[in-house]
Amino acid sequence: MTIHYRRAMSLVSELTEEIRQFAVERDWEQFHSPRNLLLALCGEAGELAAELQWVAEDRVNEHLSESNGRERFEAEVADVAIYLLRLCDVTQVDLGAAIRRKLVKNALKYPSEKVRGSAARYSSADPES
Amino acid sequence: MTIHYRRAMSLVSELTEEIRQFAVERDWEQFHSPRNLLLALCGEAGELAAELQWVAEDRVNEHLSESNGRERFEAEVADVAIYLLRLCDVTQVDLGAAIRRKLVKNALKYPSEKVRGSAARYSSADPES
Amino acid sequence: MTIHYRRAMSLVSELTEEIRQFAVERDWEQFHSPRNLLLALCGEAGELAAELQWVAEDRVNEHLSESNGRERFEAEVADVAIYLLRLCDVTQVDLGAAIRRKLVKNALKYPSEKVRGSAARYSSADPES
Amino acid sequence: MTIHYRRAMSLVSELTEEIRQFAVERDWEQFHSPRNLLLALCGEAGELAAELQWVAEDRVNEHLSESNGRERFEAEVADVAIYLLRLCDVTQVDLGAAIRRKLVKNALKYPSEKVRGSAARYSSADPES
Repeated sequence: MTIHYRRAMSLVSELTEEIRQFAVERDWEQFHSPRNLLLALCGEAGELAAELQWVAEDRVNEHLSESNGRERFEAEVADVAIYLLRLCDVTQVDLGAAIRRKLVKNALKYPSEKVRGSAARYSSADPES
Repeated sequence: MTIHYRRAMSLVSELTEEIRQFAVERDWEQFHSPRNLLLALCGEAGELAAELQWVAEDRVNEHLSESNGRERFEAEVADVAIYLLRLCDVTQVDLGAAIRRKLVKNALKYPSEKVRGSAARYSSADPES
Repeated sequence: MTIHYRRAMSLVSELTEEIRQFAVERDWEQFHSPRNLLLALCGEAGELAAELQWVAEDRVNEHLSESNGRERFEAEVADVAIYLLRLCDVTQVDLGAAIRRKLVKNALKYPSEKVRGSAARYSSADPES
Repeated sequence: MTIHYRRAMSLVSELTEEIRQFAVERDWEQFHSPRNLLLALCGEAGELAAELQWVAEDRVNEHLSESNGRERFEAEVADVAIYLLRLCDVTQVDLGAAIRRKLVKNALKYPSEKVRGSAARYSSADPES
């Protein structure tokens, strides 16, 4: 129950703090320059990509419902998040605020009434490009 | 002040919900398969990497203190996070819990008293590999 | 016809030389440290990934037969290759030899008679992991 | 000496053929769809990034002159190249020609007399963006 509560209430700031503590306890802050963390983030994004590289599109759900497949996937997702949060920490980016600013920007760029439900429009209206 | 409050209190679950709403309003959920989102995540990690690709190590802080450099960096960080949270949403990964499980696992693998403060040990003791 | 000849005969060493010349003529060698090039390579791999991020599996061939889709794809493939060859150049890696050494290593690791034609074995026998 | 000759003469087409043969002998062509290979490429680019993630800028040459560091680096470089060439093979991209087309395009975009030797111009004149 305590666990459930914490899960439901994961604050970005708390997770960031826990990740920082992990580094501090090992005196690993010295290695966490922005570019080092960026290379590490690319490394982990790559490992996550590798998890599904040979899994056919219609087999993904099945793969992720197998305990081994899910465990590996979640561990890689966590690794990407850990380095992303650590990068935000050392570069003083408020990630929650940055996400919300980007969503506002994207909403102006892609008004729902204009792009709604169209695959064709979506391709030319990549929300992140 | 409201904004400050929300920033300080960014819950992973709330951010996830806001990102999902953005997709729902545009009927873009149909494009958000795990592998599509994974390719998009790799794309955004790459764009983030590109932000610092020509910035010398000792120039990073200066670069990130310039308004243009910071704005671009934060937008790319946000893009990575948006796709990561969206990926967790569609694959039903509780990201906060996954991060904490990984930190526990890493703590067992790299006891602070053994790896502390050693660059040499760190290299061979990559916390994420 | 000359062009056809050169295409059929693209030597890794010649391409590497042409890419180096491009940098030399612009005095851009100073920016091409291994880690800079590595971040740039990740950036381009990400842009390549983005080319197919929203293209459904069974639509890829069609997408790549459209002139715009193909042109963009080939340009991104080239960008990845350019930075990879440039990285090999500055780190003095003979790419052809490195590829052949890796194929020999992989052949020992995955004897064709053992792994042949089995999806299940392939998953657990990722040739590159 | 034969080896030296082959190294000096590595043709893109020959390497592509050798990589294809490796897949054919194992009946692995069925797994090599463009998007699968793209995820694999991102995975390998990430592993390559990881090789230098904790290596300080001024330690890179030393790291790559140590036999273990160099061997790992070359193996990862080869993995990226193998998947890139395999991707070109299945999508029928003539990589040498694509690289040369991109260099011509970049030369028009960044005339050497205009961008030469200027870090400031280089930043805003990223050859690949």
